[in-house]
Amino acid sequence: MQGRCRCHGSGFHLRWPGCASSHQQLVWFKRNDANVMQVPGLNTLGVSLARIDYAPGGLNPPHTHPRATETIFTLEGELFVGFITTADKLISKTIKEGEIFVFPRGLVHFQKNVGDKPASVISGFNGQLPGTQVVATSLFAASPPVPDDVLEIAFQVDAKVVDEIKANLAPKKK
Amino acid sequence: MQGRCRCHGSGFHLRWPGCASSHQQLVWFKRNDANVMQVPGLNTLGVSLARIDYAPGGLNPPHTHPRATETIFTLEGELFVGFITTADKLISKTIKEGEIFVFPRGLVHFQKNVGDKPASVISGFNGQLPGTQVVATSLFAASPPVPDDVLEIAFQVDAKVVDEIKANLAPKKK
Amino acid sequence: MQGRCRCHGSGFHLRWPGCASSHQQLVWFKRNDANVMQVPGLNTLGVSLARIDYAPGGLNPPHTHPRATETIFTLEGELFVGFITTADKLISKTIKEGEIFVFPRGLVHFQKNVGDKPASVISGFNGQLPGTQVVATSLFAASPPVPDDVLEIAFQVDAKVVDEIKANLAPKKK
Amino acid sequence: MQGRCRCHGSGFHLRWPGCASSHQQLVWFKRNDANVMQVPGLNTLGVSLARIDYAPGGLNPPHTHPRATETIFTLEGELFVGFITTADKLISKTIKEGEIFVFPRGLVHFQKNVGDKPASVISGFNGQLPGTQVVATSLFAASPPVPDDVLEIAFQVDAKVVDEIKANLAPKKK
Amino acid sequence: MQGRCRCHGSGFHLRWPGCASSHQQLVWFKRNDANVMQVPGLNTLGVSLARIDYAPGGLNPPHTHPRATETIFTLEGELFVGFITTADKLISKTIKEGEIFVFPRGLVHFQKNVGDKPASVISGFNGQLPGTQVVATSLFAASPPVPDDVLEIAFQVDAKVVDEIKANLAPKKK
Amino acid sequence: MQGRCRCHGSGFHLRWPGCASSHQQLVWFKRNDANVMQVPGLNTLGVSLARIDYAPGGLNPPHTHPRATETIFTLEGELFVGFITTADKLISKTIKEGEIFVFPRGLVHFQKNVGDKPASVISGFNGQLPGTQVVATSLFAASPPVPDDVLEIAFQVDAKVVDEIKANLAPKKK
Repeated sequence: MQGRCRCHGSGFHLRWPGCASSHQQLVWFKRNDANVMQVPGLNTLGVSLARIDYAPGGLNPPHTHPRATETIFTLEGELFVGFITTADKLISKTIKEGEIFVFPRGLVHFQKNVGDKPASVISGFNGQLPGTQVVATSLFAASPPVPDDVLEIAFQVDAKVVDEIKANLAPKKK
Repeated sequence: MQGRCRCHGSGFHLRWPGCASSHQQLVWFKRNDANVMQVPGLNTLGVSLARIDYAPGGLNPPHTHPRATETIFTLEGELFVGFITTADKLISKTIKEGEIFVFPRGLVHFQKNVGDKPASVISGFNGQLPGTQVVATSLFAASPPVPDDVLEIAFQVDAKVVDEIKANLAPKKK
Repeated sequence: MQGRCRCHGSGFHLRWPGCASSHQQLVWFKRNDANVMQVPGLNTLGVSLARIDYAPGGLNPPHTHPRATETIFTLEGELFVGFITTADKLISKTIKEGEIFVFPRGLVHFQKNVGDKPASVISGFNGQLPGTQVVATSLFAASPPVPDDVLEIAFQVDAKVVDEIKANLAPKKK
Repeated sequence: MQGRCRCHGSGFHLRWPGCASSHQQLVWFKRNDANVMQVPGLNTLGVSLARIDYAPGGLNPPHTHPRATETIFTLEGELFVGFITTADKLISKTIKEGEIFVFPRGLVHFQKNVGDKPASVISGFNGQLPGTQVVATSLFAASPPVPDDVLEIAFQVDAKVVDEIKANLAPKKK
Repeated sequence: MQGRCRCHGSGFHLRWPGCASSHQQLVWFKRNDANVMQVPGLNTLGVSLARIDYAPGGLNPPHTHPRATETIFTLEGELFVGFITTADKLISKTIKEGEIFVFPRGLVHFQKNVGDKPASVISGFNGQLPGTQVVATSLFAASPPVPDDVLEIAFQVDAKVVDEIKANLAPKKK
Repeated sequence: MQGRCRCHGSGFHLRWPGCASSHQQLVWFKRNDANVMQVPGLNTLGVSLARIDYAPGGLNPPHTHPRATETIFTLEGELFVGFITTADKLISKTIKEGEIFVFPRGLVHFQKNVGDKPASVISGFNGQLPGTQVVATSLFAASPPVPDDVLEIAFQVDAKVVDEIKANLAPKKK
């Protein structure tokens, strides 16, 4: 669902290679990280970047960064973006090239390319290793699995639906 | 789904009243907070407590605290508890009276009463206002709503399932 | 004076064993810790718990936690608890089951069981290793000893009283 | 020397208007900020962004951010960038589109467009108001002025040179 | 017991006036603070200074700073200084002009002039308002008073000794 | 330009030896540090001290501490001290024995002995390793060198002046 370039830098510098940008995927987006794993000089400095590219219609599905606030700058395209507060209020906006949006620390958020062309953003984080937890796969594709009854109650669905979601979100075999 | 006592303290002290503890609810659990909203003296001190009571089978559904790590102490009963890492690994355990478990900052976690008696825990947080974001309602009961297509792609379900979940999780009218 | 269980957990979980709870001691109380020494998964997470049990009349004598604020929840019994501000003002209260009290970071505080039954509390700290410094033993039972003249001037007593306190607070030989 | 757009956003969103991008200046570069002054929702969140555009040959002259580490992503062009350590070691590199570089908190750094086309970067900061102190103007164009003898000794030049630099760096009258 | 100059500065500057330095006191020392109360510009900057002068034999009695580590530089004289760890170990040294000693955050410590001339130190703190809690007066001169039985058990003395200490440490009437 | 004593302490204590105090130097001042490099016990404690001695006319040239705020106490003499804000405003004052001044984190600042006798200060920092970056040498004596054109544009001088400054500030051969 999510393609990450395995790009390794050194010291204070990183070059993101030209990752193949046109592999078809179910949820069509691609993220490149520039955190302390790729740029060792970031250690103890508490900041990192990422670049995300979206195919037309591509969704970076609802997720959280447990250890950082994120703010994005739209390089190109048109994105519908939003986060949900602890009071279940959705704060959202459609943003275009040159626009900025903020996703506060730890809150569920998403971005969707709502234009008919590719879109891309640069993300700045106030953490050298923000972490990413994708809501749907954390619950329906965890290993070992989250028990069905937990998910049935949480989402108020029956076992059949839970199994269907689990099947669809399971990591692809190779 | 979740009953909270509206209990107000002052200064450095709080008394949680005897909240009616036997109201039937879909997801049967009850949380009492002792954070800076109830105990003003906690301001700037960066710590808070909560108490959670679970009916037999009761679930505190998957949620995150965007601004704190939580550690629980089991007062009574038998709980299946777990959190999911950013690598979608479930770390879980069945714990009983006198046992402790940790939920790291920002990660999705849950507790379920798997015994046949009531269960309860005390939670300690390293934040005076940790915040709670319930995964399912944040996505399916937000206001304004998260668009259906975002949820359909994220959970790989069709519109009918999304609508069903939304209907079931909608805040109850009074 | 203070009995601690040597209980070791692993990862994110800890079970406090049934420490013998009825050993007679001069100051009758018992503390079980759940900090990073017992629960390695707490490392870098900045939170910990403890449980304290008090015999009737038992005192957790005046002490400080140099690296954390503490907040307690009363499991059972009746405790007179308090802390002293830097302006030498005592903030205190008698608390019972279900009540909460806060001891701000670094300030001298104490709890005393003023009921006729055992009492117990759960403590939450915003530090993974809060540390405990018991005022009386830090001054009168240190090794090497704090010089008598320092204590005589500080407490405005003569050498005889200092020696008496030192003798009474000295660690018991085995 | 430096043109900033006065762009005001609200809440969690900001749109940088199309600042006139072709005004000739001595040091030809332009910075747009997205910090807490433009995006109020960043308050307490500890992160911000900026965009910098450089004409061919344009220099963002040596400066520091007293309250943040900066990491830049090159949108287009070719930049010679560097920072100087507290041991007076220059860490530098020529970077192109898609490359990243880090400027640790508080250290003097600069970027120069060494290509023959415009260049631009996105900066991420781990501070909501990083501040910028331009070395040359802070010393030679301060108000009230830094005394000449301080600058003569610091740079080991005579009064004539100090006065020449002060004249050249003085804020332009309107 | 402790004489403090009431000196008020403004902005980023403070002048400590020539406090009368020869008033006889039981515990003969005098402290001048330069924290955020006297130097408003220190607000949010997290640092402060103090100067302490000691008569021959003068003691700065055992105390803690709940919100800062302290490190002292000896201006003149000869001081016996020490702090006590949470394991009741005394770390101490006799220091003279030009020597430095560290008192870690929150731990009980003291300084005593052991020479036959006045002594003085400059203290640096990593807090803009470190706070000072004098152990003996916090326990024996608090208002309202700490109950006698708490002190009797803590120090293992009888009521007569507690009352004697309380009488000696009581704030002087004017 | 700057003489530092190589003084090594251990644990929580340090003695600054009687550094030869009368070596003639271009910029006549001398700094002794008491940070975590000399006093290992300061590790994780976030505080340090320094002593600076100035000959008559001696200048501690414009510099920054990238990781700490500094506050100084004047031991003797008369100093003109100042820092420059991010708005290029000079905040300065002439201070004498017993006076205090604050240099906020990361901002360019300096001290100059404007009396006809030696002067000295004690500095307190809220960092165990504040770091020092001298503005002039960081730019004109870096290794490898900062390119001439960067300096020519930044200071608005021609190559001859840049070369002259570089020659004068170059580390002395031995």
